[in-house]
Amino acid sequence: MEKNVKVSILCEIYGKLLTEKQLEVLNDYYNNDLSLSEIAENNHITRQAVRDIIKKGENKLFELEEKLLFMEKKMEQEKLLQDVLNELSKLQDTSSDKKVEKILDHVRKELSCLV
Amino acid sequence: MEKNVKVSILCEIYGKLLTEKQLEVLNDYYNNDLSLSEIAENNHITRQAVRDIIKKGENKLFELEEKLLFMEKKMEQEKLLQDVLNELSKLQDTSSDKKVEKILDHVRKELSCLV
Repeated sequence: MEKNVKVSILCEIYGKLLTEKQLEVLNDYYNNDLSLSEIAENNHITRQAVRDIIKKGENKLFELEEKLLFMEKKMEQEKLLQDVLNELSKLQDTSSDKKVEKILDHVRKELSCLV
Repeated sequence: MEKNVKVSILCEIYGKLLTEKQLEVLNDYYNNDLSLSEIAENNHITRQAVRDIIKKGENKLFELEEKLLFMEKKMEQEKLLQDVLNELSKLQDTSSDKKVEKILDHVRKELSCLV
């Protein structure tokens, strides 16, 4: 997985455990594609200070994931659910029973919320 | 939810972010039903010190859940999956198609891993 994608996902999961500034800078750098210079200018700090905030924030996120593994579990779960959705889709394609179709439709909608 | 059940679940989710001693004492108190006195004796500390470790550990767990809501999300998800499993079970009961039965059986097994 690319680093920027990974950091974005980790921010979504653990962002509330970062400081407000760390989350803001990581977001600007990885999601809004701002350069170190732009972030430095916006925050009236040096580029090195921006670099330090990013490094510290990333390290905190990686450390949390190493201990709690929520991203890993979430991705495994999404893969499994996608597999289940595909199976149910196959089932729906072959069934002509209206009642069965209705239940499958409901179930697939519910599961889609988790992917 | 009863407090001891809640603390046990939170320990499972966030335990790795507690100190080793906090996790051990919370586990002894809530899961192994040891008294404050027994834990104090085993650890050569006072009952008050045990109380402090428990309080600090619990506060850390509650604070993490307040920010990350993993327990809440996990329980909502389990409820939804249980609902889906019940729906699929109904479907399986009404179907006589062997192929359909096989797919449903596979799908239900996969989803059961997540509950």
